[in-house]
Amino acid sequence: MTDFLERISEPKDLRLLSLEELTQLAGEVRLRILEVLSVNGGHLASNLGSVELTIALHYAFSSPSDAFIFDVSHQTYTHKLLTGRNDERFDRIRQYKGLSGFAHPKESPHDHFFAGHAGTALSLALGMAQARDLMQEETHILPIIGDATLTCGLSLEALNNIRKELKRFVVVLNDNAMSISHNVGGVTNILSRLISNPTTSRWMHELDRLALKIPHYGAFFSKQGHKLKESIKNLVSSAPFFEQFGLSYIGPIDGHDLKKMIPLFLALRDLPMPVIVHLYTKKGYGMEQAEKDPIAYHGAKPFDLLTCEFLPSKSKKATFPKIFGQQMVKMAAEDPSLVVITPAMSLGSCLDPMRAKFPDRCLDVGIAEGHAVTFAGGIGKKRTCKVICSIYATFLQRALDNLFQDICLQEIPVVFAIDRAGIATGDGATHHGIYDIGFLKTMPGLVICQPRDGHLLKELLAAAFAWNQPVAIRYPNMETLEPDLPIQKRPLGKGEELASGDDLLIIALGHMCEQALQIREELLEKGISATVIDPIFLKPLDTELLGKCLLKHQRIVTLEEHSLQGGLGSVINHFLMVHGFTNVQVLNVGIPERFYDQGSYSQLLKEMDMDKERILQRILSHFTFHPQPVEKK
Amino acid sequence: MTDFLERISEPKDLRLLSLEELTQLAGEVRLRILEVLSVNGGHLASNLGSVELTIALHYAFSSPSDAFIFDVSHQTYTHKLLTGRNDERFDRIRQYKGLSGFAHPKESPHDHFFAGHAGTALSLALGMAQARDLMQEETHILPIIGDATLTCGLSLEALNNIRKELKRFVVVLNDNAMSISHNVGGVTNILSRLISNPTTSRWMHELDRLALKIPHYGAFFSKQGHKLKESIKNLVSSAPFFEQFGLSYIGPIDGHDLKKMIPLFLALRDLPMPVIVHLYTKKGYGMEQAEKDPIAYHGAKPFDLLTCEFLPSKSKKATFPKIFGQQMVKMAAEDPSLVVITPAMSLGSCLDPMRAKFPDRCLDVGIAEGHAVTFAGGIGKKRTCKVICSIYATFLQRALDNLFQDICLQEIPVVFAIDRAGIATGDGATHHGIYDIGFLKTMPGLVICQPRDGHLLKELLAAAFAWNQPVAIRYPNMETLEPDLPIQKRPLGKGEELASGDDLLIIALGHMCEQALQIREELLEKGISATVIDPIFLKPLDTELLGKCLLKHQRIVTLEEHSLQGGLGSVINHFLMVHGFTNVQVLNVGIPERFYDQGSYSQLLKEMDMDKERILQRILSHFTFHPQPVEKK
Repeated sequence: MTDFLERISEPKDLRLLSLEELTQLAGEVRLRILEVLSVNGGHLASNLGSVELTIALHYAFSSPSDAFIFDVSHQTYTHKLLTGRNDERFDRIRQYKGLSGFAHPKESPHDHFFAGHAGTALSLALGMAQARDLMQEETHILPIIGDATLTCGLSLEALNNIRKELKRFVVVLNDNAMSISHNVGGVTNILSRLISNPTTSRWMHELDRLALKIPHYGAFFSKQGHKLKESIKNLVSSAPFFEQFGLSYIGPIDGHDLKKMIPLFLALRDLPMPVIVHLYTKKGYGMEQAEKDPIAYHGAKPFDLLTCEFLPSKSKKATFPKIFGQQMVKMAAEDPSLVVITPAMSLGSCLDPMRAKFPDRCLDVGIAEGHAVTFAGGIGKKRTCKVICSIYATFLQRALDNLFQDICLQEIPVVFAIDRAGIATGDGATHHGIYDIGFLKTMPGLVICQPRDGHLLKELLAAAFAWNQPVAIRYPNMETLEPDLPIQKRPLGKGEELASGDDLLIIALGHMCEQALQIREELLEKGISATVIDPIFLKPLDTELLGKCLLKHQRIVTLEEHSLQGGLGSVINHFLMVHGFTNVQVLNVGIPERFYDQGSYSQLLKEMDMDKERILQRILSHFTFHPQPVEKK
Repeated sequence: MTDFLERISEPKDLRLLSLEELTQLAGEVRLRILEVLSVNGGHLASNLGSVELTIALHYAFSSPSDAFIFDVSHQTYTHKLLTGRNDERFDRIRQYKGLSGFAHPKESPHDHFFAGHAGTALSLALGMAQARDLMQEETHILPIIGDATLTCGLSLEALNNIRKELKRFVVVLNDNAMSISHNVGGVTNILSRLISNPTTSRWMHELDRLALKIPHYGAFFSKQGHKLKESIKNLVSSAPFFEQFGLSYIGPIDGHDLKKMIPLFLALRDLPMPVIVHLYTKKGYGMEQAEKDPIAYHGAKPFDLLTCEFLPSKSKKATFPKIFGQQMVKMAAEDPSLVVITPAMSLGSCLDPMRAKFPDRCLDVGIAEGHAVTFAGGIGKKRTCKVICSIYATFLQRALDNLFQDICLQEIPVVFAIDRAGIATGDGATHHGIYDIGFLKTMPGLVICQPRDGHLLKELLAAAFAWNQPVAIRYPNMETLEPDLPIQKRPLGKGEELASGDDLLIIALGHMCEQALQIREELLEKGISATVIDPIFLKPLDTELLGKCLLKHQRIVTLEEHSLQGGLGSVINHFLMVHGFTNVQVLNVGIPERFYDQGSYSQLLKEMDMDKERILQRILSHFTFHPQPVEKK
């Protein structure tokens, strides 16, 4: 097999290949993706599903002057391979210093925006089109969206702002009838209806009519007219949904058929109106197992390239999300009024067991975080139901106003299970859950807490409704201990002293308590004894416990896996100043304010100056320790 | 004229009145609203437009067990008058300790949710329906939305989650073809098309068919069938937009015609599917001037009841928003690459002059804050355009993730003009702009600043693009000085010392600098001399200026019109701790963390313990001042 992929150093090289060669190229691309992802894991199924459409788009349009704007952009692996990134960086995709798993403008001029959170492509594309038209440029703008994109309110706001006069604006809808899990809601029905009722009446005429108006392609159409008609024989008679928003609809087209897509995309250059091209694709295309189980192969773990079986994971320890999921099944069985909401993260947040057992009380609303939160408020309003809203820390950024107006202001006791609160490893800058304390603590009446282990997570979940106010329980996607102890009734706002000492007070948040205890051991070897406390609650703070510790300590370390802007450190600093604890010295250990790309947990901790050895050094250089105990206040 | 309104102490009293009497009642309600609003000002036009539909709904349904969920809820004046609040509290609507201008659950069990921000009603209603169905209750849920509601992504997310099986769920669409200003986008076209093509074909048959299935109303229909057909003769043949989302569509119906609406609403009880009733109304109905200029009478100032002319406002001083609006016209004239985005707040943010002069570069995207911000990122991406996104502080809560991912992460130098940053007076809890610093400061790379007067606002706007990074400039809707001085080039991160003293350092934010200077004068009379500094920038802080002042001062007051959680005070406290400025005493004056209802500026300041006299007392009791200068560090 000749290596066509090697010959592509930039997109225009595609035009040197014949259709047959492009088809072979697609196979090579698919194999390259499979090889790398079998080792690294990653967004496998969606990348396998978008190989041909990406080749066809790069063949017909001229990136980067024609701007491809990928929604979420986890499906850009083919795009990366065709735009000069088929080198050793691709072997390390989603790894430290390797390529990002998303579009990344610092990697290539072909990537216009960082992405990661769904639903932004149409708005960004409309913005670029606005600037283009003001500057009287003649390029194309191509937002490339998935069907799940259309469950996001943001996409619908953008649809509502598309003007019929917009030129050279081609929306590519890659419809695999899936979001991460199965799709939710009316938009899905609209799309599947379109696919199931293909007729050829109207749009072919429409395209013919248009073709005559287009300077360069009139000739193409009159020559190729019949062929084109053949290639777009799946056009439907009407697509009222998109037309209502001023978009001319073309489709559905087989998104794996280069022969159909290439002439169509060529014909869509220089159109004087905005169009949407509806491609239907198969998530996991070309890999039998992934086609059969696209959910499992969405964010795939490493797998055996021959058998396609996932490799056994190294550890069998429970993680915070798994314990959350188990606890939900247990609590739902005990309490028929318990309802759990997830915005399309049923798999990641380990809610599939609950959905299987209690489908009426574990509700997936699609990629619609704002609605998830406001809907939770509606359910909880009358206090007849107990509502838990499960949401990733980074996605809660999309629902701040909903949390403010529809939960806190109403004083509705919804419990937020904030998953992925911490470093996101392979997903990088858009996914780190390290800002949420900063914005959550501004919300009046919201309790904010974090468990240091799985057992405490269970206790907090069990206790939260008793506090009778909105509660945020944040936890990372990490392994944790789950000691088999009885569930204590946790009181609101009570922290715990984990170890007592004389020379230093370490206040550590959540799983960082374990690191604090390890650091304490190492300090003890140097004759320094530290008190370690787990505040558990960031709001309300356990001021009694803190006050007690501050009678003894003038040296304070705060330790958290959260941005230094707005996290535990700033909460403690504010507390100290407000309460007049002067004569103290503080070292805030947390994540310095800047953006961080992907990497392993230990690589990123190191980059953040937060690995255990470095923290120990920082403590020893920040404070002066005396052999004798410090003077008591 | 008999006073029917006096006889209505709860909604069911309506059923004692004849149709003719209900029509008279509508007139009385309208007069009551006009009388009170001519004095207080308020959401006049939308309340005049919804008198009849509210009467008809309360006649046909049984609030509060049937839940009316008003979107935004600024149009609830009739609802308030019919639900036991037609007393002296109504005379003081939107005033301190009077009725809220929005729905307010603490006023009445007929108000289920606080509201104020648009687009939440459908999600809240779906939540209530979910809880109702789980508890097997038989009540009705009625979200009452406006046409502008449908420009919000949140509403569209909710539409996408409506199940066809949902029972007793009646969406009332009050369509006045307006949002606050004119509507924007595709949804508007859909609605106006529905109104302009009324036919009677399909829905009458549909209703007939349904009627036979409904236990109580089958009889009604067979008796009243012909009448009903008459009364709903405006039904259209199809309404594909809503049907795609599983909502059965009924309408459009004249929303001022009680005779049509009452039998229709009665017929819609106990329906086994979700329906949307499309009412067309006239904003400002019954008041000639308001019908002619519904934008001016949307948030109306006090007016003369006889002439309906607005009363002259007491002051002619410029306000921050007015100066912003003037500056935009000026900057747009000088720079053809300047683009301004507003999410439906063109009037409030004083952008109408720019829209009139530069319609292509002052873009209203509708009530779609998320899209506004992401769209701004798209426009600014290539650095060919300078983009200013004008947005109210409280509405920016709806676009935090857009600010994070689509602006800050991309390092696009969009300038945010954050209007209404401060106490919202008449609008109350949902509208106070007092949380934004808390969530903005968590955003990496975002500059945050606030001008103390109109001149500085102009300077910051003029300088912001030179800093080449995202910038937030926040300012309140207050009168301000606008000295006619040359525009200095403001450097990034530089504060100013406004007055020098020896005994106390006051750090004051924005317009609070004026108060700080007044307090300084009063302290001087007591022999205490204060330094007053305006940091101008909250991020980056002017650490040089602060460091210099801290060499001299150990007593520090921070003064801000922002929540104490996350505002200037916490920024300064964090700074002091991080930089080891121990031996200082701090008094943070700001807004204590809880929710505040409406009131005048001075009433609310007092309630917040922040009026000038109280601050002075607090300073004098917090610190011990010595006659001699304090010891220098």
